Amino acid sequence: MNSYPYPMLNPPPFKWNKGYQIIDPKVHEWIQTIDAFERVNWSAIDVTILGVPLSRSSISPSAASETPDAIRRAWKFFYPYNLDYDIDIVDLRVVDLGDVKQHVTDIQVCHRQITEAMVVMRETHPHTLPLAIGGDHSITAMLVKGWKQTHPEEEIGILQFDTHFDLRDVKTDGPTNGTPIRYLIESNIIKGNNVYNIGPHGFFNAKSLKQFADKAHVNYITLKEARMKGINQTVQKALDELSNKVDTIYVTVDMDVLDIGPSPGVPASSPGGMRTDELFEAVYLAGKAEKVKAMDLVCIDPNKDLTGGTVKTGVHVMLSFLTGYKQRKGRGL
Amino acid sequence: MNSYPYPMLNPPPFKWNKGYQIIDPKVHEWIQTIDAFERVNWSAIDVTILGVPLSRSSISPSAASETPDAIRRAWKFFYPYNLDYDIDIVDLRVVDLGDVKQHVTDIQVCHRQITEAMVVMRETHPHTLPLAIGGDHSITAMLVKGWKQTHPEEEIGILQFDTHFDLRDVKTDGPTNGTPIRYLIESNIIKGNNVYNIGPHGFFNAKSLKQFADKAHVNYITLKEARMKGINQTVQKALDELSNKVDTIYVTVDMDVLDIGPSPGVPASSPGGMRTDELFEAVYLAGKAEKVKAMDLVCIDPNKDLTGGTVKTGVHVMLSFLTGYKQRKGRGL
Amino acid sequence: MNSYPYPMLNPPPFKWNKGYQIIDPKVHEWIQTIDAFERVNWSAIDVTILGVPLSRSSISPSAASETPDAIRRAWKFFYPYNLDYDIDIVDLRVVDLGDVKQHVTDIQVCHRQITEAMVVMRETHPHTLPLAIGGDHSITAMLVKGWKQTHPEEEIGILQFDTHFDLRDVKTDGPTNGTPIRYLIESNIIKGNNVYNIGPHGFFNAKSLKQFADKAHVNYITLKEARMKGINQTVQKALDELSNKVDTIYVTVDMDVLDIGPSPGVPASSPGGMRTDELFEAVYLAGKAEKVKAMDLVCIDPNKDLTGGTVKTGVHVMLSFLTGYKQRKGRGL
Amino acid sequence: MNSYPYPMLNPPPFKWNKGYQIIDPKVHEWIQTIDAFERVNWSAIDVTILGVPLSRSSISPSAASETPDAIRRAWKFFYPYNLDYDIDIVDLRVVDLGDVKQHVTDIQVCHRQITEAMVVMRETHPHTLPLAIGGDHSITAMLVKGWKQTHPEEEIGILQFDTHFDLRDVKTDGPTNGTPIRYLIESNIIKGNNVYNIGPHGFFNAKSLKQFADKAHVNYITLKEARMKGINQTVQKALDELSNKVDTIYVTVDMDVLDIGPSPGVPASSPGGMRTDELFEAVYLAGKAEKVKAMDLVCIDPNKDLTGGTVKTGVHVMLSFLTGYKQRKGRGL
Amino acid sequence: MNSYPYPMLNPPPFKWNKGYQIIDPKVHEWIQTIDAFERVNWSAIDVTILGVPLSRSSISPSAASETPDAIRRAWKFFYPYNLDYDIDIVDLRVVDLGDVKQHVTDIQVCHRQITEAMVVMRETHPHTLPLAIGGDHSITAMLVKGWKQTHPEEEIGILQFDTHFDLRDVKTDGPTNGTPIRYLIESNIIKGNNVYNIGPHGFFNAKSLKQFADKAHVNYITLKEARMKGINQTVQKALDELSNKVDTIYVTVDMDVLDIGPSPGVPASSPGGMRTDELFEAVYLAGKAEKVKAMDLVCIDPNKDLTGGTVKTGVHVMLSFLTGYKQRKGRGL
Amino acid sequence: MNSYPYPMLNPPPFKWNKGYQIIDPKVHEWIQTIDAFERVNWSAIDVTILGVPLSRSSISPSAASETPDAIRRAWKFFYPYNLDYDIDIVDLRVVDLGDVKQHVTDIQVCHRQITEAMVVMRETHPHTLPLAIGGDHSITAMLVKGWKQTHPEEEIGILQFDTHFDLRDVKTDGPTNGTPIRYLIESNIIKGNNVYNIGPHGFFNAKSLKQFADKAHVNYITLKEARMKGINQTVQKALDELSNKVDTIYVTVDMDVLDIGPSPGVPASSPGGMRTDELFEAVYLAGKAEKVKAMDLVCIDPNKDLTGGTVKTGVHVMLSFLTGYKQRKGRGL
Repeated sequence: MNSYPYPMLNPPPFKWNKGYQIIDPKVHEWIQTIDAFERVNWSAIDVTILGVPLSRSSISPSAASETPDAIRRAWKFFYPYNLDYDIDIVDLRVVDLGDVKQHVTDIQVCHRQITEAMVVMRETHPHTLPLAIGGDHSITAMLVKGWKQTHPEEEIGILQFDTHFDLRDVKTDGPTNGTPIRYLIESNIIKGNNVYNIGPHGFFNAKSLKQFADKAHVNYITLKEARMKGINQTVQKALDELSNKVDTIYVTVDMDVLDIGPSPGVPASSPGGMRTDELFEAVYLAGKAEKVKAMDLVCIDPNKDLTGGTVKTGVHVMLSFLTGYKQRKGRGL
Repeated sequence: MNSYPYPMLNPPPFKWNKGYQIIDPKVHEWIQTIDAFERVNWSAIDVTILGVPLSRSSISPSAASETPDAIRRAWKFFYPYNLDYDIDIVDLRVVDLGDVKQHVTDIQVCHRQITEAMVVMRETHPHTLPLAIGGDHSITAMLVKGWKQTHPEEEIGILQFDTHFDLRDVKTDGPTNGTPIRYLIESNIIKGNNVYNIGPHGFFNAKSLKQFADKAHVNYITLKEARMKGINQTVQKALDELSNKVDTIYVTVDMDVLDIGPSPGVPASSPGGMRTDELFEAVYLAGKAEKVKAMDLVCIDPNKDLTGGTVKTGVHVMLSFLTGYKQRKGRGL
Repeated sequence: MNSYPYPMLNPPPFKWNKGYQIIDPKVHEWIQTIDAFERVNWSAIDVTILGVPLSRSSISPSAASETPDAIRRAWKFFYPYNLDYDIDIVDLRVVDLGDVKQHVTDIQVCHRQITEAMVVMRETHPHTLPLAIGGDHSITAMLVKGWKQTHPEEEIGILQFDTHFDLRDVKTDGPTNGTPIRYLIESNIIKGNNVYNIGPHGFFNAKSLKQFADKAHVNYITLKEARMKGINQTVQKALDELSNKVDTIYVTVDMDVLDIGPSPGVPASSPGGMRTDELFEAVYLAGKAEKVKAMDLVCIDPNKDLTGGTVKTGVHVMLSFLTGYKQRKGRGL
Repeated sequence: MNSYPYPMLNPPPFKWNKGYQIIDPKVHEWIQTIDAFERVNWSAIDVTILGVPLSRSSISPSAASETPDAIRRAWKFFYPYNLDYDIDIVDLRVVDLGDVKQHVTDIQVCHRQITEAMVVMRETHPHTLPLAIGGDHSITAMLVKGWKQTHPEEEIGILQFDTHFDLRDVKTDGPTNGTPIRYLIESNIIKGNNVYNIGPHGFFNAKSLKQFADKAHVNYITLKEARMKGINQTVQKALDELSNKVDTIYVTVDMDVLDIGPSPGVPASSPGGMRTDELFEAVYLAGKAEKVKAMDLVCIDPNKDLTGGTVKTGVHVMLSFLTGYKQRKGRGL
Repeated sequence: MNSYPYPMLNPPPFKWNKGYQIIDPKVHEWIQTIDAFERVNWSAIDVTILGVPLSRSSISPSAASETPDAIRRAWKFFYPYNLDYDIDIVDLRVVDLGDVKQHVTDIQVCHRQITEAMVVMRETHPHTLPLAIGGDHSITAMLVKGWKQTHPEEEIGILQFDTHFDLRDVKTDGPTNGTPIRYLIESNIIKGNNVYNIGPHGFFNAKSLKQFADKAHVNYITLKEARMKGINQTVQKALDELSNKVDTIYVTVDMDVLDIGPSPGVPASSPGGMRTDELFEAVYLAGKAEKVKAMDLVCIDPNKDLTGGTVKTGVHVMLSFLTGYKQRKGRGL
Repeated sequence: MNSYPYPMLNPPPFKWNKGYQIIDPKVHEWIQTIDAFERVNWSAIDVTILGVPLSRSSISPSAASETPDAIRRAWKFFYPYNLDYDIDIVDLRVVDLGDVKQHVTDIQVCHRQITEAMVVMRETHPHTLPLAIGGDHSITAMLVKGWKQTHPEEEIGILQFDTHFDLRDVKTDGPTNGTPIRYLIESNIIKGNNVYNIGPHGFFNAKSLKQFADKAHVNYITLKEARMKGINQTVQKALDELSNKVDTIYVTVDMDVLDIGPSPGVPASSPGGMRTDELFEAVYLAGKAEKVKAMDLVCIDPNKDLTGGTVKTGVHVMLSFLTGYKQRKGRGL
């Protein structure tokens, strides 16, 4: 039994709960992993990150199941300090819970466990903000369902950034990344007019889905329209309208809202999509809104991200959102 | 002799002429191929697509000859419904005629057959709009030449989107993707001042070509200038001026007008080029203009399109143009 | 109503049933597609190709669902003439039936339809040899199951080329590309000692699976062992032993048996695998064996095949097998 | 001894000093290499290009040492004529001096030689404008140091385009691509308030560096802020303020200021960065400013530039700068 | 303070020292990380893995510094069971010590710390076998130096697999990946005739280095020669000769010994190199030899390993070596 | 007028004719370029390299026109010393003549100039061995034609390494990379039975071409057959037979003879091809044969060579051939 003899090795990861300090931590040094066999002081936690490595439910083949780990690996390229707003998010206590277990072939089992993870998060530490990293867009339906289950009385609104309506018929294909919003509406978990989808465009939605959206009173603002009105203005208006109508706003970012040119790492990305800087501003605004209480980020496929830019964009989206959230919570926390 | 026993197989392609219906067809299910050995009811056709797989005439090595097939394969990612304008183009009857035969080494023979294909289209079904998919830019000269041959009395104008003038001297290099506009002017098929080139920029044209353009009264608006005036305004002005001067406007989109960053799949693309959304709007406007009667799309090289985004951009250009065309023809057709 | 006016276009695909002839057809011109709405003279067919685009059941993310189309597109690089053996396979009548319909999320439904496709093939045209193109390895269990269903009295043997045993427990993960052989054994469709697996190697199988293989009397010959004995000798010995024991030999080629270096286009490929020329010889021998009556080819992922070599290798495997089959049927057929 | 017998071979490179002429030269035909063993008429030279192939000092692994040659190879895609401004830069006499020798392991030796190269340029032909192509950003400190050494009385200002402050502590890591500006300030070569950094943004700088920047009175304008004020206006204001304060403005372009989406070929590039057309305008303005007397371009890694677009962007930056410089010097020179 | 509430999350990593069990662990579940702040029972450890992320000393640009992490990430594709030899290496206790700290610019400091790490390993737990993962080949000199420092009386032999001699002159370039063997000879740490280099070939060594090798009595067997004699025979002969002469054999595998075709992920790899299966056998033999007491694996660059095959080959080399080592130590340990 | 002041810059290229010396030159320092305006002492030259950048005549799209430059850039990775044979080829005087001028569209003109280049080489310095770097295989016909023109009395034999016969009908497609051998036979420049093609295999030749080969008495040995007899033995036998029949043997290496797995950088490469080490030995033997007097190397496309391995293989082929040539000429020259 010896004490540790290796001063010339890189030090072990920084741990809050051991009282270590680190100068200028990077994001991977700031976000803490959880050791399942130690006691956690949940009351000190602000945000919980949940990996949801499911992409078997994706319509087109996707390795989005590898995104939670890819996002974690890319944290090292970022500091938890936002120069644009001079906001230091390092005071937020963010814990990475790890990944929801996935069954190899049974999507129903996977979905049940995703719902269950949200239920437990809401029950065990309801003051934390859950931030889920997909996986494909089918997970959103399960996460919102979990929220509803623990807060049955709440009216929930959805702020969605997406190229698609995601209003395909669940009966035809089962629960895919094309159906989450329809599933939520048809299950009476949310009302159609509490959905605000910003960014659909082009030739990527069947006309019948647009007709379904209209009938269900889903609010959608095409990217073209949003740019004419100002994207920030459009997002703020959606947040304001939702804030008047609902108890909780859930933000879901389908990364296929982004243009395929600069953001190729999404299987369903397409030309004519959103710029990354537009999206960063949009989620920053969402982070600031009082009623926003959960967020997810879906549909990146790291295998298609040849240059690493799309995964880094995913990290930036998450941090831009947390910048707004930090501002809402107050500078000194 | 048995009837077909396979209900568990994917159904055969949708065919208008057999009266099948399909819900929410995608573009590859909507555009029909032609069976050369059946009779065609040409009077019901609105648009004919012609593949022109020639890139042996390209100055830099290019696999643009593989683009017609690459474009066709990418159709499956698109619906014939434009959400931005709420316009359903599915009522347009679009037929894919297949590819012009190409000789393996003799560019003259290839070029003659391209001209001939346009002549036959104009003679056999003059009410259809030809939409050619290259191949490199040398094909434009041959297609316009074919048009002129069948309409010798017509004044033809060209609306060109291009990083280059394409005014190199045919005598030096033969008919390449650098020479089509000069060939048309020097052959008296079009007049220099009936050419409107929107988008040239940067360091990609020799000064002598700019001097030739000036002497030939070619109208060109650099991308910088077009952005200052508004790209839509610039395009509309060009269409209006041409409409006053000519009988037929031919639209030619050299995809190298696009910026190399988001659109790397073009051998001669360069930094500082057009954004894809700018081009989509521009060709939509062109599609709406009454005198626009033919279009081509050239110079994509699918081998350079690592992420598939540039080929998809090509499909979007074609569909944005058809959106305008649909609007011109009337919503109900 | 006009007759077809386009002599300068490429001709339509060659069709046997219309009596056309083509000099030196390539493989895509030789293999015929089936028009579901015309009557087929099944008695003239030798081989039926079945696409099985399922990879949702793959343990690691895979786009093997895109392989049937990728294989078809690569046919154009091959002639149906094998120079190595001076054997012309062009006389074989090969029909491509198209793809089995796949449900978007329900793997059970997909699997049922795969089994059903085999059943119908056996019932409708039992004299043809089915050649299935996956998809992932889970399809093999379903195809063999279909065969057994129509030939319940038959003893079936499996000649498998694979890096893995594919003997994982179906109860744990459901039917994946890691379980097909175990599923077949545990369902009493085949006996363990009627399985001959040639090629497993290295560190890619859990020890417990090797122990299961031993207990179930599965015959396996590691690549190292096979090379010492001679791969051809090993394959021939397996064929001979099986021929003495079973009525029908089903050949299944998991392309992950190949070395990852030259054959990167398989998600589970690994270093130390088989060379392509070894595999070509092996399946040629299999094609010659009288009792071999069906074959499949699985687990290529065209998205990982950066240079196109692995998809081409897949085509070569299929053609090498057919060379042996042609030789068995007789030169003049 | 024969004279040269090969008229059918491509001619040797164009040489001014041999009186050859070439019609419409491309950039590689216009910029001259220097033959070390012939006498040079320095008085006729306007600009000297210096390759600085050092990237061993880069924090993240980088092949920026291969950039000088990659830039030179990409010259052939450009003409020395700027269509946007109708300015012909072909009259500028530009000489490529070749590369500074680099030691394989000793960064100090490399750095000394870079400084020495600047010293000799200033002493031997002080009327020429040095344009250095890195290499990583550590070279800037050495080049400015060399300038200061030959002009000890001069006040030097820095116009920097960068995602980062480059104000890391030299004592911790040694002279890296994260430290050049701090080194220059702490060595009293420049004053903090004579640095103008345009473009930092996002989560890519530790908060402590921002605090150092503030304490050192470094001027920085985030990209967001610059866009709100107008990038051109911001650049011009920085040039004007510097022109009032200093004798010489040194322009340093860290290509990581660009957005990773369209410009992936920089190891430290990130989402949310500058557009290429914004940078082209910015350096054009810098080239026009009377006090701008040297420029460098750093941190491209050609191995990360899969499509070649980032290297081409580097060439465009250099030519846009020279367009401004040509305009400053007068059209006819 | 709550206990951990998340049964639906993936379990935490398997830890021996907590008595957990895992069925069929993969390599990443079997190799343990070390928590620097807990006491370690060194006496139970068989093998210590040391990451050495240094590639700043590489002659050509290399990201070999990212290899230790890349190798660790690839462990999940392997089981610690070697089917070829039916040897279960799971009983070996392997601990990953983490990475040696690297200075950003000072290679001397990096090198000192590498030597120091070996010294501490030898002093603290001399019964364990060190297995170092580079980094570039310069680290070998430092590791062997550390061994010599703690065992000054020992005669050390080197078994090297390499395309190059690595006998360049340290005085010219400093300590690079071209100099380690010469450094060791000239520092009298090893004798030239105790070096056996198997695999050099082709046009990749200057003639003067061959002459130096001859003068220093370095034993080298070209790949061609080794193949004629049998690679296994050649390796065994080298091991036998060394075993008679030295106390300790250090095995160093420069992965550039492999052929560039199947193993492109090494900056200096070249055509005509070794096959991966040849190398796997060779290191297995080395692992079995009693006097082999340390090993390293160098020069992979994960950024050049487009398909992941070369990193996987690196893992396979390490596991093949450990298979031999397990066999030497005895099946039951 | 100053003398050159830059000792800290890299020195200019080494020149024999200026008497400079360089220690351990690499291949790019050893092969000399020719300055067209200086007198050349042809009598001192052993080998002349000729770039033939033509790929417009390739059946499938190819950038083989960029190969001469790609080969030249890869020289820096090689030393002119062959360790396998301990042969120093540095004493051979090799001059790079540069590239044959190519017309942009007229293949006939290109071909005439290639023939002319060979004629002038034979007339001006008939004692040198021409080594041509294509370009596609169509150039071989033109080079051999040029040889015949200057040596009308000579019987010429061809030693061809190729996957294909290259016996397609010139009348159908014109002179392509599929026709050179047929062209030479039908033009009576060579006799069919003086062609030895080693390496054709698989499904890559139409049966009719095999029939043509038989009728024309072309000697071909499939790869399978050659491996059974020994590749070296097969090559030597072909050389011996040719040596008895002809005056001059021309060696043509179509790099598509190589397997696509490790050598993807050839448009028409295919699975089941030759290994690189087999080819290196084969051309070494050819280099040694007294009657071998010219060589070419064709059909690499550097754009398809993602990892650079195929271009490096091309350089190795050239150097292996020169090793044999050096041995023939005598060690001391």
